Amino acid sequence: MKKTYSVFETELRVRPDDIDMNQHVHNSRYFDYVLAARFDQMERFYKVSMEDFTREGYGWVIDTAHIEFKRPLRLGEYFLVRTWMEEIETRGVRVGFEIVKKENGKQSCAGTFHYTMISLETGRAAVIPVWMIERYSI
Amino acid sequence: MKKTYSVFETELRVRPDDIDMNQHVHNSRYFDYVLAARFDQMERFYKVSMEDFTREGYGWVIDTAHIEFKRPLRLGEYFLVRTWMEEIETRGVRVGFEIVKKENGKQSCAGTFHYTMISLETGRAAVIPVWMIERYSI
Amino acid sequence: MKKTYSVFETELRVRPDDIDMNQHVHNSRYFDYVLAARFDQMERFYKVSMEDFTREGYGWVIDTAHIEFKRPLRLGEYFLVRTWMEEIETRGVRVGFEIVKKENGKQSCAGTFHYTMISLETGRAAVIPVWMIERYSI
Amino acid sequence: MKKTYSVFETELRVRPDDIDMNQHVHNSRYFDYVLAARFDQMERFYKVSMEDFTREGYGWVIDTAHIEFKRPLRLGEYFLVRTWMEEIETRGVRVGFEIVKKENGKQSCAGTFHYTMISLETGRAAVIPVWMIERYSI
Repeated sequence: MKKTYSVFETELRVRPDDIDMNQHVHNSRYFDYVLAARFDQMERFYKVSMEDFTREGYGWVIDTAHIEFKRPLRLGEYFLVRTWMEEIETRGVRVGFEIVKKENGKQSCAGTFHYTMISLETGRAAVIPVWMIERYSI
Repeated sequence: MKKTYSVFETELRVRPDDIDMNQHVHNSRYFDYVLAARFDQMERFYKVSMEDFTREGYGWVIDTAHIEFKRPLRLGEYFLVRTWMEEIETRGVRVGFEIVKKENGKQSCAGTFHYTMISLETGRAAVIPVWMIERYSI
Repeated sequence: MKKTYSVFETELRVRPDDIDMNQHVHNSRYFDYVLAARFDQMERFYKVSMEDFTREGYGWVIDTAHIEFKRPLRLGEYFLVRTWMEEIETRGVRVGFEIVKKENGKQSCAGTFHYTMISLETGRAAVIPVWMIERYSI
Repeated sequence: MKKTYSVFETELRVRPDDIDMNQHVHNSRYFDYVLAARFDQMERFYKVSMEDFTREGYGWVIDTAHIEFKRPLRLGEYFLVRTWMEEIETRGVRVGFEIVKKENGKQSCAGTFHYTMISLETGRAAVIPVWMIERYSI
């Protein structure tokens, strides 16, 4: 039976410097929003901040990103970034996400990021330790 | 007697994409934080949003920026951006600002921006109308 | 028989503000590099600049982005962005890309973007006119 | 008699992600352009790259930035960033800069940055060693 994982949510707001020549959020900034939400959620929900990771000698690198853009966010908009584990593998995780407009709950974009865990010492992929799998299995 | 103006405050948080190779907020992002605070404060306190401005045929352009950097902001930090009118001139305004760390109230940076009001039609400096001076004189 | 299209190349260099806390190019900036290369190549090779598009009442919106990250780019590195048409559809195009390090030709990242052509007047997907298909079919 | 220093020049081009909602280069990006030019010029002309600095245990922090904006840069424009030493002090340097449009030589912006040299070990201001002063005195 496949394990399902919790969905976590972070509220953010579009900054003026996120807006591009088309008057809506620049495509690459959605990436940054998901990253900001992951940092926030790792600390608040998984109780293992990026600093903890580094201290333990581990790091995450993104190896694949997939995004479907639906509705652009606009200047000053509030939005919710939801992320969840889709798969915990031996040396990596696949994280799903969606960004929805706070005003009406409509989806702005959605996708998945695949991260590999690396040892900061060797720079190579490392087996995710049991304690970390447990923290993520919520 | 010189008129003094209200100081307004906006709370923001450092995003991971604001951090540069030196592990603290990239110098140019403090600019963006002040800009974000001005947009927020124009709407909330001056009751004249950037959209209102555009609709009336006006725009603001920055012609001078001066920043003194004191203490860098770090990943995930909450901070307060305070801005205030220093001078309302015939065709421009000088806005003062400071960014302080929420945790301890210590100043991260401070400075002034000088903006000129332009007519969107002509692209040239325009006299600030009386109604706008009144909105700003709080 | 499937038509194949030309591969175009743009040389760029990593700027210091592209570097993030991990000392290499921030993940979302690769997006921006591909975008910069497309603008350059549309003008130089397809002979139809973004300005031409806008003048004709058309625009492109990205609806899907897929990136595989292989080797990070570092401060000051020169790199080549290659893009090509993978598919020209009735209302959209799929563009393939890869970024390679100039120094050794090794691949930094690769992926595809799917764009839909929209009418700027209606904001809706529009059929790509014949003249435009011809320009792209090189 | 006051020493005068050489003016160095770096050519760069506006990227699409530098453009903001006003259809010209975002104010804070001019900062980034000067930074990019300094890195380039330290390496090419002063023969002391940022990496050299770090290896010697030194770093530069900006403590004051002053910019006057004259003419905005636009999408795809080529421009020249000129920088020069204005003053070499015991623990810091004042660097002057200007950005001019390549097309017509007209000034886009100009200003000064004041940097303090710090010891990476203590994080405090450090006296600039003689060998470094000599490198900069060209």
